[in-house]
Amino acid sequence: MTSLAAEQTGSVEFRTEPARYRHWRLATDGPVATLTMDVDERGGLGDGYELKLNSYDLGVDIELYDAVQRLRFEHPEVRAVVITSGNDKAFCAGANIRMLAGAEHGQKVNFCKFTNETRNGIEDATANSGQTYLAAVNGTASGGGYELALACEHIMLIDDRSSAVSLPELPLLGVLPGTGGLTRLVDKRHVRRDIADYFCTRPEGVTGRKAVGWRLVDEAIPRAQWAETVAERARELASRSDRRGRAAGIRLTPVAKTRSETEIGYRWVTAALDPEAGLATITVRGPDTDAPADMSAAHEQGADFWPLAMTRELDDLILDLRTNEPAIGTWLLRTSGDPGRVLAHDQLLLDHADDWLAGEIVLYLRRTLKRLDVTSRSLIALIEPGSCFAGSLLELALAADRSFQLEGVFEDDDPGADPAAVTLGAMNTGPLQMGNGLTRLRTRFSGDDASVAELTRRLGEPLLAADAAELGLVTFAPDDIDWADEIRIATEERASFSPDALTGMEANIRFAGQETMETKIFGRLTAWQNWIFNRPNAAGPAGALRRFGTGQRADFDRKRV
Amino acid sequence: MTSLAAEQTGSVEFRTEPARYRHWRLATDGPVATLTMDVDERGGLGDGYELKLNSYDLGVDIELYDAVQRLRFEHPEVRAVVITSGNDKAFCAGANIRMLAGAEHGQKVNFCKFTNETRNGIEDATANSGQTYLAAVNGTASGGGYELALACEHIMLIDDRSSAVSLPELPLLGVLPGTGGLTRLVDKRHVRRDIADYFCTRPEGVTGRKAVGWRLVDEAIPRAQWAETVAERARELASRSDRRGRAAGIRLTPVAKTRSETEIGYRWVTAALDPEAGLATITVRGPDTDAPADMSAAHEQGADFWPLAMTRELDDLILDLRTNEPAIGTWLLRTSGDPGRVLAHDQLLLDHADDWLAGEIVLYLRRTLKRLDVTSRSLIALIEPGSCFAGSLLELALAADRSFQLEGVFEDDDPGADPAAVTLGAMNTGPLQMGNGLTRLRTRFSGDDASVAELTRRLGEPLLAADAAELGLVTFAPDDIDWADEIRIATEERASFSPDALTGMEANIRFAGQETMETKIFGRLTAWQNWIFNRPNAAGPAGALRRFGTGQRADFDRKRV
Repeated sequence: MTSLAAEQTGSVEFRTEPARYRHWRLATDGPVATLTMDVDERGGLGDGYELKLNSYDLGVDIELYDAVQRLRFEHPEVRAVVITSGNDKAFCAGANIRMLAGAEHGQKVNFCKFTNETRNGIEDATANSGQTYLAAVNGTASGGGYELALACEHIMLIDDRSSAVSLPELPLLGVLPGTGGLTRLVDKRHVRRDIADYFCTRPEGVTGRKAVGWRLVDEAIPRAQWAETVAERARELASRSDRRGRAAGIRLTPVAKTRSETEIGYRWVTAALDPEAGLATITVRGPDTDAPADMSAAHEQGADFWPLAMTRELDDLILDLRTNEPAIGTWLLRTSGDPGRVLAHDQLLLDHADDWLAGEIVLYLRRTLKRLDVTSRSLIALIEPGSCFAGSLLELALAADRSFQLEGVFEDDDPGADPAAVTLGAMNTGPLQMGNGLTRLRTRFSGDDASVAELTRRLGEPLLAADAAELGLVTFAPDDIDWADEIRIATEERASFSPDALTGMEANIRFAGQETMETKIFGRLTAWQNWIFNRPNAAGPAGALRRFGTGQRADFDRKRV
Repeated sequence: MTSLAAEQTGSVEFRTEPARYRHWRLATDGPVATLTMDVDERGGLGDGYELKLNSYDLGVDIELYDAVQRLRFEHPEVRAVVITSGNDKAFCAGANIRMLAGAEHGQKVNFCKFTNETRNGIEDATANSGQTYLAAVNGTASGGGYELALACEHIMLIDDRSSAVSLPELPLLGVLPGTGGLTRLVDKRHVRRDIADYFCTRPEGVTGRKAVGWRLVDEAIPRAQWAETVAERARELASRSDRRGRAAGIRLTPVAKTRSETEIGYRWVTAALDPEAGLATITVRGPDTDAPADMSAAHEQGADFWPLAMTRELDDLILDLRTNEPAIGTWLLRTSGDPGRVLAHDQLLLDHADDWLAGEIVLYLRRTLKRLDVTSRSLIALIEPGSCFAGSLLELALAADRSFQLEGVFEDDDPGADPAAVTLGAMNTGPLQMGNGLTRLRTRFSGDDASVAELTRRLGEPLLAADAAELGLVTFAPDDIDWADEIRIATEERASFSPDALTGMEANIRFAGQETMETKIFGRLTAWQNWIFNRPNAAGPAGALRRFGTGQRADFDRKRV
């Protein structure tokens, strides 16, 4: 297809800033911010579709993601965020259907993954950062538009006899609501399953008080009282927030980046791309200075403060590779630097949990690592002399599907080097939970509390390969004679397997133990949606998604599977 | 395809008995039973494949299901069950690949669902019935063969340097292990995720002590000690069982059934089929006599005891419709009879929880209702005068996606009838949990404990339509003027929607709240597998599943989705 061609040529760009927004306006007024969606119909990322009725594509959502991030870092004073529409015909019509109908399967899936992550980020801001989101639904919110509202803590619907909330995907398009709607209906808003069933088959949706009665929205407000009530509710939510920031925010200066066909470079992160081998080698560098003495020094460093700068780069890299390099199926994860400095930076953040910036950085790192967990690429960590897998950076190895730690040193290259070590820190035992609500350590040793207890006793101790393997922290510990061959075999083998089967396997065994609403969205709901996206009944020439708007009805294979 | 043609013509038959087994031998010796798998290569359900190396198809698994059921009812004395192989070349090679490669998508999915249910039933026997399963893996167990072992509580592997356990689906076939293997590895056996990853990419599998070290099996025993150690272990497991039965079992006499294109009839259950409308109307009849005075009278009734007889018929009907009538997408659920008698039968069972037969019947009903929850058909309950939605039969309405209860009576037909009522009983508040470990009531009112508490106060009270709707027990309460139209619109509308989107929606909103290993298998794992089954990389002409055994390598689209 041509319409999303940009995504296929490596050129989708996730870095933006409010001055460059085409689709959103961000305004703040003391403790209340307002995010106004006013999509530029002609501002689609690809050709071939117009973003009517505040419908969105990946480009629109990239701006939303940027705004949510900036509110957390640049606006510590903001305690409530109102999402509303600047389009007088609709609140939001959801993902653009012509864009979806024309997109390749992989593009649809990647788009949904990013939009899901952004909505999870909205919930994360509400739950953990004292920035409570309020959906001021001042026109019809359909499909992804209503799902955007569902990600907000409080939903207000204008009661004007025409503005409705709806999930018309099933009756109109033959697909599911793609950004968590079904799960949030029953698991977040506790809409009874039979009402949810009925609601999801009514393309016209539900208006006013009935929507309140069905728990679909929290209140329905007549137009005459709308502006005043929304403002009042926002002030109330803001006043209930425990957000700690009073001081000025950190300016999120542009992330500097170089990009070619074979390398993506940032200050702290580099990725060497080998499209032929289907391999990206990602290196994350630890800080090159000691940790600041206190958080006020960190505030002064602002966006240059290593944990924040590194996380922003890693975040951008993950999004870039996912979207622009689908044929690179394996990511090798490496680190370099001084483990002590990483642990000191970690400690500074954890010692000042009452500092809003420290809190935000840890939460941002957590969200970024969660992106890795749901990334459909094989992740292999390589732990060598000079590497820096300690504390927060050790999470990269714990997020990996496999890890290799060199036993000893490379005798030919640098026989005098210190052998590779991994070092657990406080970041590994609590704050960086996966989407399932458990740490990566706890998930790794699911059902094996003794191992977790033993490892917790060894925080701060550099563990050489034999120890780390014995303790179960790494998968393999080859010596330098076997190292290159083992890595080569593992990566070549990975490249030879079915990419789809790898994705399915990884999506299952990465998430041992309990499930949460978040993992249900990525596991259960997304997996079913991906299945439907592949079915002729949706995506085939006579499928509902392709026939929508043509005046022709879909021609279904009626057999239930 | 021709090979599974039988499945498409309504003729797959789930009723069998040991005398008719072609693939299994069932023997008991006091407290220990042995199930020996010795698949008849030429005994496949379809043409076009041979069941070599103890590979299986649906027909083989139907016998296994029957054996597991009979052990519970016919053999109260059995406390441990050994599953082993009578094939001298393999323990079990898993699902037959040629069968899978040739099967239509829907057949593959239905086959996997049934095999999953059977393995869950094995775990249910171990966990709840004191019949502990032991896998005596006396040859290589690959793919579904190893997954069968994973469903057992204890896995013994013969240590002969060649017998291995393996999950070769990903490297050889480009699909996932289809019967819970990935989930059981990490969630049941607590195999570390990186070891699971490595294991699942080694088609040759793992033998002997290494398999023990990786927690893949519990012990590896040399051939010289094999028979003796297996017997010893079985005796140990049997001696630890708390199974209550000492007396003689109940003989599971053949379920009498009539079947035509338009009707399936049993003693207590009938289904009227309307393939044109895509509709089956299922009626379950309550008991026509009072409950026996005590369980000894129930023992005497044996397989004719209403709760058991009705459950067996419902179970067979669900399996028949699922397999043989894929184009019938909506099941209307009706009941008839005396609610008081149902509640009395329920009470008898619950009052005698220490009676092995009472316990087994409740557990069987629970498993059968769980089948409904994972059935990919829309379920609509119709509650009319003369119906019998009380206690255990009310679960049918609670399992439905929607329910309609008539307000008042049919004025033209029977103005003097008692109006339709639903009656909660003790069966609704505890013993019949869904796969998520919660009752249907608790799942329905997820996050709304007040409603559950209120309903629990009203056990035994016949609730008319207005009350039941107000309390949230039913979805709609039309009167007789609207009744027929509302049902017609609901069913016609349902038939007009994408069958796939309905399946996806139902699989998500039926399972509010927590997940368990069981729901993870049906939700997360199965959904991903179904997606892979649809992908050209597996099922396309150049996909791995189709090319297996041809000598040609699969030709993969390398893009990760």
